[in-house]
Amino acid sequence: MADRFDPKFTGHVLETIGPNCTPRNRLVLGALMRHVHEFAREVELTVDEWMMGVTFINSIGQASTPIRNEGHRISDVIGLESLVDEVAHKLVTDGADPTSSSILGPFWSPNAPFRENGGSIIIDPAPGGKPTLMHGKMTDLLTGKGIPGAVVDIWQASANGKYDFQDPDNQSPNNLRGKFKCDENGNYHFYCLKPTAYSLPTDSPAGVLLRLLDRHPMRPAHIHLMITADEYRGCTTQIYPNDDPYLSTDTVFAVKDDLVVDFKPIEGDPKAILDLEYNVILAPKSYKGVTPHTQSSIGLESKL
Amino acid sequence: MADRFDPKFTGHVLETIGPNCTPRNRLVLGALMRHVHEFAREVELTVDEWMMGVTFINSIGQASTPIRNEGHRISDVIGLESLVDEVAHKLVTDGADPTSSSILGPFWSPNAPFRENGGSIIIDPAPGGKPTLMHGKMTDLLTGKGIPGAVVDIWQASANGKYDFQDPDNQSPNNLRGKFKCDENGNYHFYCLKPTAYSLPTDSPAGVLLRLLDRHPMRPAHIHLMITADEYRGCTTQIYPNDDPYLSTDTVFAVKDDLVVDFKPIEGDPKAILDLEYNVILAPKSYKGVTPHTQSSIGLESKL
Repeated sequence: MADRFDPKFTGHVLETIGPNCTPRNRLVLGALMRHVHEFAREVELTVDEWMMGVTFINSIGQASTPIRNEGHRISDVIGLESLVDEVAHKLVTDGADPTSSSILGPFWSPNAPFRENGGSIIIDPAPGGKPTLMHGKMTDLLTGKGIPGAVVDIWQASANGKYDFQDPDNQSPNNLRGKFKCDENGNYHFYCLKPTAYSLPTDSPAGVLLRLLDRHPMRPAHIHLMITADEYRGCTTQIYPNDDPYLSTDTVFAVKDDLVVDFKPIEGDPKAILDLEYNVILAPKSYKGVTPHTQSSIGLESKL
Repeated sequence: MADRFDPKFTGHVLETIGPNCTPRNRLVLGALMRHVHEFAREVELTVDEWMMGVTFINSIGQASTPIRNEGHRISDVIGLESLVDEVAHKLVTDGADPTSSSILGPFWSPNAPFRENGGSIIIDPAPGGKPTLMHGKMTDLLTGKGIPGAVVDIWQASANGKYDFQDPDNQSPNNLRGKFKCDENGNYHFYCLKPTAYSLPTDSPAGVLLRLLDRHPMRPAHIHLMITADEYRGCTTQIYPNDDPYLSTDTVFAVKDDLVVDFKPIEGDPKAILDLEYNVILAPKSYKGVTPHTQSSIGLESKL
């Protein structure tokens, strides 16, 4: 099909990249242009479709605000953030694997406060929410020993599916956010909610794209976790209740098998109706896996 | 290299496209997602590079205005508009070819007035500009006969490199724009300027991208033409003086060999110092070429 077209065109475009372009920029931006060209030839993109694409690209930035990143959301809906997460964090081992990473998403905050083990991130009422005692241990991939002082930063939406800064009428800043430091054995425990599935905002370019694709906008219920410990590779991830109906069709493709967890009934704890044991395995920074991570050490060097 | 990654991921993303997605949307958007994934795996896109990309995509819409289409400009700088033009208009013949098309660009206006043959599109002074008598004949690809009543819509930047609506202090609306109707033999003639090379606006996402690529922002000097005639395939194109230094590195990749023309000195015409003969060959609408145009008749059906 492509033979109908000038076979030299893409090569010519790439040849115009100048001598002062850094090697990484040449590699990344060259590959991006090549793939865009291959896409356009493969589908024989029409002029009207191209112009719809231009209009769509423009709409992404126009719908973005300081607290609403539509470019980020579109990249999630097409699976790109999840794929980039895999490229960055996939560690190939010859035995047990460390806990899988998952995407950061747009709702992490650098301002979550440290709270005491045994404390709660539930600051404001959450009608219909199911308080849960979440607890577990952080262990070393190689030794199986606990990791004292490991920190878990947790954030989640409330029972209405909204995060604190999307819902200022009902939630205080840092509601359902907190950081906890593991004890001398690597154990942590705190109270949170069983999470609630929610829809991405659909009055947005992402909503337009999802409707074109006849896809639902739902994320399965999840709790976000960012786990850090000195001398260990950190792990940003999400965990999902095993009874969620959207596990296999997550609209941002962030579910992995080992991140699906079991919320069980609990008795005798006045602060909780569910119990969640969740243990995390971290790899030491010095451990490179059996297949060394091959990613180029040359980053896209110029700042945009 | 890609074997390190989940081989089912992209297939899973494509499988979530719903049953009510139209066949063309499934084809186009599916291919787009597949190519984006292949790109990310091929270059092992880093988290920082992905986030720079997100920020860049957002910047495109944020820099766009009703008279400044940065999405269009970015697609030009990566060669996409020129490629889409080729996909849409390439006609494979077994003899002479019709005049090549080229990109529309963002400066066409639907409001250009009809002017008489022998008239001028030079309404306002253009210091340094070289008035040119442009003339020629529109002929039928198959018969070689003139096409009476063919219309040429012409637009060009002034000697300062700016179009009328970029330069309201110096140019009236429709300065250097006009439509001319060929006579009964298919001939036209009018006065214009020898065009001037100019830079794309560089205070823009396109400028950022060009600097990353170490590429210049120059378009070779050109005159835009949109030629229409009943019963003929129209031709939107551009012509370029053969002495322009940017012919081989046009920042939007719109130059084709048969669009390079020769401006010659003229004597005895008080209105011009240069002469340009430019003849155009149009294919009848009924002529499909030796290789039928294979583009799917199914367009991207839903409106964005």
